[in-house]
Amino acid sequence: MEKRVLGLDPGLAILGFGIILGRDEGNHAPTLLDFGVIQTPAHTEMGDRLCTIYDDLHTLLNEWQPDLVAIEKLFFYRMGNTIAVAQARGVLMLVLAQHKVPFVEFTPAQIKQALTGYGGADKQEVQQAVARELNLDAIPRPDDAADGLAVALTAWFQR
Amino acid sequence: MEKRVLGLDPGLAILGFGIILGRDEGNHAPTLLDFGVIQTPAHTEMGDRLCTIYDDLHTLLNEWQPDLVAIEKLFFYRMGNTIAVAQARGVLMLVLAQHKVPFVEFTPAQIKQALTGYGGADKQEVQQAVARELNLDAIPRPDDAADGLAVALTAWFQR
Repeated sequence: MEKRVLGLDPGLAILGFGIILGRDEGNHAPTLLDFGVIQTPAHTEMGDRLCTIYDDLHTLLNEWQPDLVAIEKLFFYRMGNTIAVAQARGVLMLVLAQHKVPFVEFTPAQIKQALTGYGGADKQEVQQAVARELNLDAIPRPDDAADGLAVALTAWFQR
Repeated sequence: MEKRVLGLDPGLAILGFGIILGRDEGNHAPTLLDFGVIQTPAHTEMGDRLCTIYDDLHTLLNEWQPDLVAIEKLFFYRMGNTIAVAQARGVLMLVLAQHKVPFVEFTPAQIKQALTGYGGADKQEVQQAVARELNLDAIPRPDDAADGLAVALTAWFQR
């Protein structure tokens, strides 16, 4: 059975996404469908930034109709602007609920473990694993999009 | 000129609202149009709770078409569940931006000052002022709805 998995690396200024197609039969490797970022300029109104995230996420979900969404878990206590990031996350949770698509969450350590076998791996090792697993010639850019693919692959490996 | 002002006391479990009609001419007192609460049960999924807030706020704004929205400013550091409340606030900001309705924010002290002349007034004094200003026989219930009316009146007095 084929499954489309959308991975999201949430944020207010930049939200990374990656979409993969996994196949249960024949031990096929998952393949890349799309990746990119949703960006909202820092100087614009909070409400307008949230509208952009809302509209672009709906477009993404309508276009790809994923079977599963995987989200990198945020550690709010590490971030400067906790409230702003949580507001953006509220809009993300809203859109997923409106689409009635199931989602799973993984911590950064779980993602590193799933992709490299080591929970303390650095960013570059994770990105190289993303390129290797998806048979890509280069690491997807920007980093946020590669992070989106990493969490999608984690969900696929742990299905 | 007539103006409809929607006041909101934001929250995840219970969001209070109050709508008043103010008139600039003839020194008329503002009149009550509606008040109530949007509630989301604590045992339901966060995404479903955010959908309820999204849908009910849209219904409220479509029904009353306010000229101005006034919001009680949250003090996150005082709250237990900061992230959850901020997520609900993100949905509220999204809906206001989608309706392109202007909004203003007031701190609890500003609301108390505007309604009682004293920034340290207690909850009951503020609620009695709400009933008096709107010529009501009784204080609106629940408290969250009275708080919604209080912030709407504050915006009207400070226009």
